[in-house]
Amino acid sequence: MKILVTGFDPFGGEKVNPAYEAVKLLPNKIAGGDIIKIEIPTVFSKSTIAVEEAINKYEPDVVLSVGQAGGRSNITVEKVAINLAEARIPDNDGEQPMDEKLQQDGETAYFATIPVKAMVKNIRKHGIPANISYTAGTYVCNSIMYNTLYMTHKKYPNIRVGFIHVPFSIEQAVGKPDGTACMSVETIAKALEFAVEAIIVNKEEAKEVMGTIM
Amino acid sequence: MKILVTGFDPFGGEKVNPAYEAVKLLPNKIAGGDIIKIEIPTVFSKSTIAVEEAINKYEPDVVLSVGQAGGRSNITVEKVAINLAEARIPDNDGEQPMDEKLQQDGETAYFATIPVKAMVKNIRKHGIPANISYTAGTYVCNSIMYNTLYMTHKKYPNIRVGFIHVPFSIEQAVGKPDGTACMSVETIAKALEFAVEAIIVNKEEAKEVMGTIM
Amino acid sequence: MKILVTGFDPFGGEKVNPAYEAVKLLPNKIAGGDIIKIEIPTVFSKSTIAVEEAINKYEPDVVLSVGQAGGRSNITVEKVAINLAEARIPDNDGEQPMDEKLQQDGETAYFATIPVKAMVKNIRKHGIPANISYTAGTYVCNSIMYNTLYMTHKKYPNIRVGFIHVPFSIEQAVGKPDGTACMSVETIAKALEFAVEAIIVNKEEAKEVMGTIM
Amino acid sequence: MKILVTGFDPFGGEKVNPAYEAVKLLPNKIAGGDIIKIEIPTVFSKSTIAVEEAINKYEPDVVLSVGQAGGRSNITVEKVAINLAEARIPDNDGEQPMDEKLQQDGETAYFATIPVKAMVKNIRKHGIPANISYTAGTYVCNSIMYNTLYMTHKKYPNIRVGFIHVPFSIEQAVGKPDGTACMSVETIAKALEFAVEAIIVNKEEAKEVMGTIM
Repeated sequence: MKILVTGFDPFGGEKVNPAYEAVKLLPNKIAGGDIIKIEIPTVFSKSTIAVEEAINKYEPDVVLSVGQAGGRSNITVEKVAINLAEARIPDNDGEQPMDEKLQQDGETAYFATIPVKAMVKNIRKHGIPANISYTAGTYVCNSIMYNTLYMTHKKYPNIRVGFIHVPFSIEQAVGKPDGTACMSVETIAKALEFAVEAIIVNKEEAKEVMGTIM
Repeated sequence: MKILVTGFDPFGGEKVNPAYEAVKLLPNKIAGGDIIKIEIPTVFSKSTIAVEEAINKYEPDVVLSVGQAGGRSNITVEKVAINLAEARIPDNDGEQPMDEKLQQDGETAYFATIPVKAMVKNIRKHGIPANISYTAGTYVCNSIMYNTLYMTHKKYPNIRVGFIHVPFSIEQAVGKPDGTACMSVETIAKALEFAVEAIIVNKEEAKEVMGTIM
Repeated sequence: MKILVTGFDPFGGEKVNPAYEAVKLLPNKIAGGDIIKIEIPTVFSKSTIAVEEAINKYEPDVVLSVGQAGGRSNITVEKVAINLAEARIPDNDGEQPMDEKLQQDGETAYFATIPVKAMVKNIRKHGIPANISYTAGTYVCNSIMYNTLYMTHKKYPNIRVGFIHVPFSIEQAVGKPDGTACMSVETIAKALEFAVEAIIVNKEEAKEVMGTIM
Repeated sequence: MKILVTGFDPFGGEKVNPAYEAVKLLPNKIAGGDIIKIEIPTVFSKSTIAVEEAINKYEPDVVLSVGQAGGRSNITVEKVAINLAEARIPDNDGEQPMDEKLQQDGETAYFATIPVKAMVKNIRKHGIPANISYTAGTYVCNSIMYNTLYMTHKKYPNIRVGFIHVPFSIEQAVGKPDGTACMSVETIAKALEFAVEAIIVNKEEAKEVMGTIM
């Protein structure tokens, strides 16, 4: 099995992006699967192009994208991506879509096609805090998850797709208010490894209640 | 114009639900529109039945449901409901769906059909903290929003639908850890009134960036 | 009774400080007491000088200082100030003390000498979220509370002293992540008014459990 | 050097206390120092007695107490303990002090006498999120820190004293709302080990700005 793992470059004034820093630390083999790692730009349009080029070049079985969710304390495996681009700040190319559909003929949303609960469960089993998230936001992270799901639904039906949000790294948190949630890049990399392992070894989704109670 | 506003009964060990407490305080007329208020049970199946009965009885132009989101500090107008029921605790009838579709033939998600940004803007203009939310969770709140959007898409295409989550009331927060976010029921009721006003007077959505930057 | 109420000027890149914006809105009379309002600089050394000058000029019975606590959702009445200056960012004059005592011969901490619980209770009674806080931080807010308590203990034993932290204003939150806690300046001003009212009318502290459970 | 490390038993409806679970995992030797581990009851009066008995029995050079701070995402090394008992819920013996001094002739507060910044720095260096905290609350955690500092100031001037708050364990967070901050007991134990190491090897406090900016 071949897993393409993508990580964004830094944005929003940060000097690093813990997503790609952690992706770089992944081994080249996990549970018998081959890991291909690429950095993609935090740009609405270009990130999608970069992922499709990598799909054509590497023909992966799974595309797992990884991004930073500053303020979250846990690793979060995203369940759903929505057909909406709404950017509170410009992306790294100055694009700032407002209330735009990502794809005119796309569905309102797509669910991840990787086993999110099994991934959360495996990360937790190894002592790293993790949970499912039901919103990937409306910025470039949601965009890459949505667009990759859209293109696989249209053109590459055998490729499975998902997204993981990671906390600030410890270094990023140091300059921020006391108590800002963070995680070491090494721990994030371990979590990604356990997530990928769960994708490879799980035939089906884990049976475990993980929902919210709003 | 006729607006049906629903509020849930208490759940999860709470003695009141600030949602229906606030709904009760709404005036019977807002900006020329008639306000119909009903309490609905915090039960996956029954809440949907109660809303459809009220739709048939009152023939409203808009259905606005309101629920409690303990822990949030602001009024949040929900943008999207997803086709998923996942209950961390049983509902008030003991139902506890896990990883179930709400509707076999429903879309993965529906966007709210009321002007969420205009509502947020009008609430803020009157001095009450508000923002858009991109997840209504996976419990009964998301369920009623999804199911009402589903049934209007299928059967009542002229009815517009949305959902508002409200913080704990001040009384609820008193027994919880210091600093627990809360809002007075009177302030919540005012926020709902401004939200309804925006639905009635706005021909179109507000133009204002409100997105996230994950 | 004469109440001196101080509010800081903006700092940390913010354009306004909701503290002084709210102080300005206070009426000149509350519950029969005279309200004197001054803006003080967000500078460790100068703020203390400004408060002592105002004490000498106005001879107040109470000094209540007000500052911004970005990120908190409730009005917080501070219980304690500590003999420590530790500045994560420089103040408005470039001073950035690290691990310094505020007063060489001061106590490790002083408790507020105003009725904090009665104030919290009165604010809540009027529908505004409030709680006691047990840390005023280590920046200029803690510094002015500590230094004013120090000087009243040493030189002005009849003057009572306290501090209130207030959330971001709604305008400040708009450019920040969705869900950032905030409160309208008008609501903050109302809370300050109820707090002052409680100081004036309460002979003794309220009897009500408000503690934490860490 | 001899280090007495205490951990509380479970309270507030929890089945475990991650504090003592982690303390149990500590090695018996850290950086040449001997580690003595005891469990103490979450009871205002008895916990202090238990610590003093252990001081007399083991004659430690350092007393480091550890407690649970549900909701915090990082390991927090406490800087200050205050002379106040205020219990939002009864302790494990039904004691529920309200607005009481812990010691009639005690100071308003004591600072920790261990190198808090050096401890935070060493924990972070090993990839675990940590920061200083300026409030240990008003419950049994603050009480044991305050009372141990009080008794060492009065009777055992050569013993250094401090307190560390730890997040919920991953197991505790599973039944709580999605995204509840937590940390594995193994990671917490590692953090405690690095904290103790810093106490043993550091002649003086680290020079590094860590303050808040309220």
